[in-house]
Amino acid sequence: MGSGKKIMMADIPWPEYQKRVAEEVVLLPVGTTEQHGYHMPLGVDAYQVEFLAQEVAKKIDAIVAPTVWYGYKSQPHSGGGQLFPTTGLNAQTLILLVRDILTEFIRHGARKIVILDGHYENAMMLTEAVDLALRASGRDDVRIIKSSFVNMIDQELTETLWPDGFPGWDLEHAGLLETSLMLYIKPGVVDMNKALKVEANLPRYEVFPQYEGLVPASGALADPTRATAEYGKMLVENIVMNYVKSIEEAFQLG
Amino acid sequence: MGSGKKIMMADIPWPEYQKRVAEEVVLLPVGTTEQHGYHMPLGVDAYQVEFLAQEVAKKIDAIVAPTVWYGYKSQPHSGGGQLFPTTGLNAQTLILLVRDILTEFIRHGARKIVILDGHYENAMMLTEAVDLALRASGRDDVRIIKSSFVNMIDQELTETLWPDGFPGWDLEHAGLLETSLMLYIKPGVVDMNKALKVEANLPRYEVFPQYEGLVPASGALADPTRATAEYGKMLVENIVMNYVKSIEEAFQLG
Amino acid sequence: MGSGKKIMMADIPWPEYQKRVAEEVVLLPVGTTEQHGYHMPLGVDAYQVEFLAQEVAKKIDAIVAPTVWYGYKSQPHSGGGQLFPTTGLNAQTLILLVRDILTEFIRHGARKIVILDGHYENAMMLTEAVDLALRASGRDDVRIIKSSFVNMIDQELTETLWPDGFPGWDLEHAGLLETSLMLYIKPGVVDMNKALKVEANLPRYEVFPQYEGLVPASGALADPTRATAEYGKMLVENIVMNYVKSIEEAFQLG
Amino acid sequence: MGSGKKIMMADIPWPEYQKRVAEEVVLLPVGTTEQHGYHMPLGVDAYQVEFLAQEVAKKIDAIVAPTVWYGYKSQPHSGGGQLFPTTGLNAQTLILLVRDILTEFIRHGARKIVILDGHYENAMMLTEAVDLALRASGRDDVRIIKSSFVNMIDQELTETLWPDGFPGWDLEHAGLLETSLMLYIKPGVVDMNKALKVEANLPRYEVFPQYEGLVPASGALADPTRATAEYGKMLVENIVMNYVKSIEEAFQLG
Amino acid sequence: MGSGKKIMMADIPWPEYQKRVAEEVVLLPVGTTEQHGYHMPLGVDAYQVEFLAQEVAKKIDAIVAPTVWYGYKSQPHSGGGQLFPTTGLNAQTLILLVRDILTEFIRHGARKIVILDGHYENAMMLTEAVDLALRASGRDDVRIIKSSFVNMIDQELTETLWPDGFPGWDLEHAGLLETSLMLYIKPGVVDMNKALKVEANLPRYEVFPQYEGLVPASGALADPTRATAEYGKMLVENIVMNYVKSIEEAFQLG
Amino acid sequence: MGSGKKIMMADIPWPEYQKRVAEEVVLLPVGTTEQHGYHMPLGVDAYQVEFLAQEVAKKIDAIVAPTVWYGYKSQPHSGGGQLFPTTGLNAQTLILLVRDILTEFIRHGARKIVILDGHYENAMMLTEAVDLALRASGRDDVRIIKSSFVNMIDQELTETLWPDGFPGWDLEHAGLLETSLMLYIKPGVVDMNKALKVEANLPRYEVFPQYEGLVPASGALADPTRATAEYGKMLVENIVMNYVKSIEEAFQLG
Repeated sequence: MGSGKKIMMADIPWPEYQKRVAEEVVLLPVGTTEQHGYHMPLGVDAYQVEFLAQEVAKKIDAIVAPTVWYGYKSQPHSGGGQLFPTTGLNAQTLILLVRDILTEFIRHGARKIVILDGHYENAMMLTEAVDLALRASGRDDVRIIKSSFVNMIDQELTETLWPDGFPGWDLEHAGLLETSLMLYIKPGVVDMNKALKVEANLPRYEVFPQYEGLVPASGALADPTRATAEYGKMLVENIVMNYVKSIEEAFQLG
Repeated sequence: MGSGKKIMMADIPWPEYQKRVAEEVVLLPVGTTEQHGYHMPLGVDAYQVEFLAQEVAKKIDAIVAPTVWYGYKSQPHSGGGQLFPTTGLNAQTLILLVRDILTEFIRHGARKIVILDGHYENAMMLTEAVDLALRASGRDDVRIIKSSFVNMIDQELTETLWPDGFPGWDLEHAGLLETSLMLYIKPGVVDMNKALKVEANLPRYEVFPQYEGLVPASGALADPTRATAEYGKMLVENIVMNYVKSIEEAFQLG
Repeated sequence: MGSGKKIMMADIPWPEYQKRVAEEVVLLPVGTTEQHGYHMPLGVDAYQVEFLAQEVAKKIDAIVAPTVWYGYKSQPHSGGGQLFPTTGLNAQTLILLVRDILTEFIRHGARKIVILDGHYENAMMLTEAVDLALRASGRDDVRIIKSSFVNMIDQELTETLWPDGFPGWDLEHAGLLETSLMLYIKPGVVDMNKALKVEANLPRYEVFPQYEGLVPASGALADPTRATAEYGKMLVENIVMNYVKSIEEAFQLG
Repeated sequence: MGSGKKIMMADIPWPEYQKRVAEEVVLLPVGTTEQHGYHMPLGVDAYQVEFLAQEVAKKIDAIVAPTVWYGYKSQPHSGGGQLFPTTGLNAQTLILLVRDILTEFIRHGARKIVILDGHYENAMMLTEAVDLALRASGRDDVRIIKSSFVNMIDQELTETLWPDGFPGWDLEHAGLLETSLMLYIKPGVVDMNKALKVEANLPRYEVFPQYEGLVPASGALADPTRATAEYGKMLVENIVMNYVKSIEEAFQLG
Repeated sequence: MGSGKKIMMADIPWPEYQKRVAEEVVLLPVGTTEQHGYHMPLGVDAYQVEFLAQEVAKKIDAIVAPTVWYGYKSQPHSGGGQLFPTTGLNAQTLILLVRDILTEFIRHGARKIVILDGHYENAMMLTEAVDLALRASGRDDVRIIKSSFVNMIDQELTETLWPDGFPGWDLEHAGLLETSLMLYIKPGVVDMNKALKVEANLPRYEVFPQYEGLVPASGALADPTRATAEYGKMLVENIVMNYVKSIEEAFQLG
Repeated sequence: MGSGKKIMMADIPWPEYQKRVAEEVVLLPVGTTEQHGYHMPLGVDAYQVEFLAQEVAKKIDAIVAPTVWYGYKSQPHSGGGQLFPTTGLNAQTLILLVRDILTEFIRHGARKIVILDGHYENAMMLTEAVDLALRASGRDDVRIIKSSFVNMIDQELTETLWPDGFPGWDLEHAGLLETSLMLYIKPGVVDMNKALKVEANLPRYEVFPQYEGLVPASGALADPTRATAEYGKMLVENIVMNYVKSIEEAFQLG
């Protein structure tokens, strides 16, 4: 990446953006505004993907688009559910939002777009958004990567951090992963004194309407108490390395 | 279950239906019409959930609603993707379809509804459909269970059937699980001579547009060659048992 | 039609489907789940069109797509109305559903599609669905026939079966036509002991909201008591013959 | 009806409207802008229902709402089809438009609403619009009549005007009925020199896309040459009489 | 303009319309049905733009399309708000309505379309409608002008009519401008005895839900008492002149 | 405002948020990602309202919700139009997005919500969003203020800053106002060397499709060259003061 280049789309004037967007990778962070236990604030999902996108953009020629701060409705099995004061969009709303954003980037000239998803429940809505945007574009020279950042973590690291067995990314809500990341990225919003050792015990099916008592009272689904900033650093480095590798592979860069 | 009672909603005249729907469980099978390798036909997902719903209905007081035969767009990581001649609905279409169906069942008096999902990609759309139907109903005496039938398989059975390690349900598309089930449920549509030993090797991210060569040419993502009707029977029995248990638990029957 | 060929789309593996769909006629049965008097079950409309499609497919090269089991809201003048426990979709839902299905068949290569409609109230929604699918396809080599199966009955037969004057197809709900068809197609779900001689006496306008007492209490709008399986057979043969003739004419086959 | 009262909603100031709307009948004419042969202009459907509504309003306490001038897409079997320069809305558009209009009238206090439909293809979309408006209103004191004006013609008159047999209202597009009405209502826009004796010969199914030659080149589907203003007067009087009778019956007036 | 040519689309048979629409300008008046104080009726906005369109069509080769009589929800700052018995459509409804109308005109061959907007609140919805219609058309030979008729008034005339300072067009609701126009166009629906000297005093922000007392009780936002038919004539002449000039400029006519 | 309280919703854990949201004002900044001339970056509208919301929140008890970074399509008369690489959402998308966000805040307990709009073209979409959210809530204890921040500037200050006459807020795109604000708020993204003295000369109507040359090549519509950070400070102080005053007035605080 060139030194001194601005990486945030919001900070670039349009003539420079217009030139760069046709050549560089556009990174679109998508999070949500969702409870993350007693010990972390509502912005965790968005902060994480915005930070990761910035780190990736420091290593390749890329522009980081403004983060989507509102995502799909939280579910008990992956985010605690909508009984908490979480802000969840309707499916169609999120689909149209991301479809329109992608449609515009493509119109601007973007041909290499990466969605970094930080909220488990967004995944299929983003798939639909990408599909609709690509169909509407009528183009065959656009390639879009959609990714959940947790899939960028190598299994080796997973085994290191969860030596007693890994619970699955859906259940890692506000647990070791996210807490470690936030301790590294934005420690001022984490209060480890409020981090409780919890364990979610969820049925093999989903029940609607959601009800009190299904998930731990804190809203976290996994144990955050072992989290450290050091783990967060390891995770960030691993994720960023794999994003860079994946992007180079998928877009056949370099 | 009462002997001789009809279990298919389609076979019941309305006066009987009206009485029963207020008391019994309504089972809604949701599948899709999707490629399942060289050795199985397009109807696998729907056939499976329709059969399972019927088996469950033989054990509890329940009505099996007409199957939803068209589901969400197939994805490479779980169903081979839309390059195959698979029939995929737009997200909003599937959401509205299931929302409307549920809304009507609730209007008829149904208070205990179970969705049996046989197509991995449907999951979040069904979540949205349930949420919209419940909100619109304005009722608090309706309970809806949404389930993927694969989650009704006990881990012990999984370990028995996949002694060398289980690949995950998403990758089990047209593999041992589904092939065994179909050999048991409807063997006439399975041609084991065309079952190929395949292994999908998919990246940790998703790429759009989908492209040729990403998944095995047959469209299956996992090895179906070890499948047997006996395994299918074991799976059906395990799934049905767990459905019955789950339904009793969730609706506090009996 | 070739002997031994599978006719149900659900029973065909994708490689065979992909070859055949480009050459053969695709038949899409669309019914609904609607009350049909005291003497017939909820599935009548769908059973009829599915059966008729299968009979047609035995005579020409054709594939029968999975039946659409949920249709538009029942109306008093043609189906008894929504006060009965009938399952009616919103207009937009049915339109999008059939639009998406047609869009996918066209993408698979289908160029000759026939919609067999068994539910009077579906008609205009299917028109819209076809129009939207064709516009979106951007193709001019696709031809779609939309038909109500009752229009395939010759006037001669109508005069034979209703010697005292024919009430019109809308009012024939659960009357002589449908009861005869079901006695032939699936007699086990018809209970002629519960067939009542009724006559609907409807105003020349429609009133909303629908109210009790507007239609006969059984939900049938016409007299089913003269129905016989023999009439059903005559009707099926006449309808199938005219479908085959119409299809050959419209697609200029043979 | 009070003498001197304004009958057009557009001509009434809001304080008077607010008082009257809660007591009187609101008449909503819905037409379209559609070809009507060589001899009549595009506005026929709307002109007719607007005129009829005004005549009805002279006989009962009623307000005539602004006419809906754009309706659903013309079909070959009833209006010649969309190959003519007819202005047809999408189904969802017409549904939302009439739903919103009804919702507002109900909010204003209207409890007795009559839709006068002058375009055959609008019918089911209006049904959906009424259903959606009533559900959303959450009220049970609103009654809405939906009517096609042709159904207000007595059979006796039909037999008088079509002594050789009546073709059905769908086929009467730009034929004797509509031409006679326009000769009475607005003769300046009818040119009988261009009225051709035509006969439509349509298949028993519908074909999409619509194609040239399916309907008579003029766009009329039935013979207009016998039309006279006298017939038009007889039709208007009969229709208005039956509307008044129907409204009194349905709303239990007087 | 040729003498004797019909200018209202509703009055033209399709063969003439089809020829003219490809050459002439199509004028689409868009109003609403909205309170206009004690002294004017609900139809003011639509009457004005319909009249203006007709006057413009007398001076250039143009066709006046049927008026859109229902517009977007009235707002306190520009139309008194929705507490009055005003008929306001949802945004999406108005957008789809005008999008579909424009789409059809373009399909008919129209290449020069002018929207004359008479209701302040419609403006952005019309912008969206035009954008959607043009994108969907895929054409680059269509040009659409969207205009608020008040912007066609020269500043000199404004200064003449409001010598003490002009309040802004949004606040001119049912004030001097509209009252003068109606006194000239359709004096029979104006009652100057009920015209009150009012002054709206609105905050610099908008508050929802709207509440009683925010705007003058009559619903007018500005003083109509100085209005005269003579002013109305001056306004009409100025507006029509500027429309003609603008249309010639924008379409490079003559 | 309490010292030390976090003001950004993203930084607050849910238990604290849940308590505060029911008592405090929720401020929702809505901007867009839009060109702002050669001398300013794409994020101007969002940066401004986010900053202003934070300043307001320092003076009253308030929570600043995550900024909406994507707004409605830019128009030539107010933002240069969509020929620039500006990211504009469809109207329905923005409406649904803000409707859903408001619906969630209300569900969380928010009763006092203020929308701070920084993008002229968003205004009517936000109005619709608020209207839909309030109707759907069914509550009468929620009050929402919608405001364009430019309307919070006192006329006295306007006269001071534009001594030669004020062009109107729509035309102030990337001119003195926005440039001064950004020089104060985030000077690092302003390059005054690229600020050109421009003057937009736009017709009194809007033309679609938008075309090159209609607005100044830089995309700014007004002269930014006189901008200073000092002016920015004066503007911020004036706007914040008036926001505080307006909020206290509208919610009858203190």
